[in-house]
Amino acid sequence: MRRRLAGARVARLATVRPDGRPHLVPCCFALDGETLYSAVDAKPKTTLALQRLENLAAHPAVSLVADHYEEDWSALWWVRVDGVARVLRPGAGGDPGDEGSRTALDLLAAKYPQYRDRPPPGPVVAIDIVTWRAWP
Amino acid sequence: MRRRLAGARVARLATVRPDGRPHLVPCCFALDGETLYSAVDAKPKTTLALQRLENLAAHPAVSLVADHYEEDWSALWWVRVDGVARVLRPGAGGDPGDEGSRTALDLLAAKYPQYRDRPPPGPVVAIDIVTWRAWP
Repeated sequence: MRRRLAGARVARLATVRPDGRPHLVPCCFALDGETLYSAVDAKPKTTLALQRLENLAAHPAVSLVADHYEEDWSALWWVRVDGVARVLRPGAGGDPGDEGSRTALDLLAAKYPQYRDRPPPGPVVAIDIVTWRAWP
Repeated sequence: MRRRLAGARVARLATVRPDGRPHLVPCCFALDGETLYSAVDAKPKTTLALQRLENLAAHPAVSLVADHYEEDWSALWWVRVDGVARVLRPGAGGDPGDEGSRTALDLLAAKYPQYRDRPPPGPVVAIDIVTWRAWP
């Protein structure tokens, strides 16, 4: 379960909008123990990024799933984590646990060479995992 | 946007739990105009299926995303639809618009040969699309 999630190159992050409707976006991420980091790739001022951050400010509970699809349905799997999100803003300081966004960015760059050349411009979302679910 | 979504073999469906936390599950689906159908593969009495249906009863607003990942990030894309879900129960009758779950199951079987041999045992979720979003 942990190996599958850690190795997945993409996952989908579900948040809840202030008005209670769900919001969903694919994302890259890095897993570190019971915390998962995902960078907001878009610039902070774009609508897409703002929506996610606005949702987290209103509803910090999130759900994230990684899955594998192929036409042989006996090989399908998914791993889902439910947790609580915090937003780590570069240089803002005062992050709980003092982990900062630099550690998160290092982890993301270690997993994705794409981030080494072009660090994500937005803040990092840290998700403290509360529950794991997997299928099958 | 429509072509990409219709052709995707898997998508992820986000719903909201009665307590307000998001819930997320991968799913197969078929697109028909501005309605999207997804079968509950698990038997109705299993926990996984029940959670999704319980969520829809409390919060009919849903979000569904299909995306493409590859290591060349210039080729990434996703398409998201937000909408309102109805649950079509086989043989229950009284579905709005009288579309029934049979039409939905026919559409799903036309897209997925896997369903032809083994029709999904659970009810079908019909999502009336309200908004489309795509990236990039």
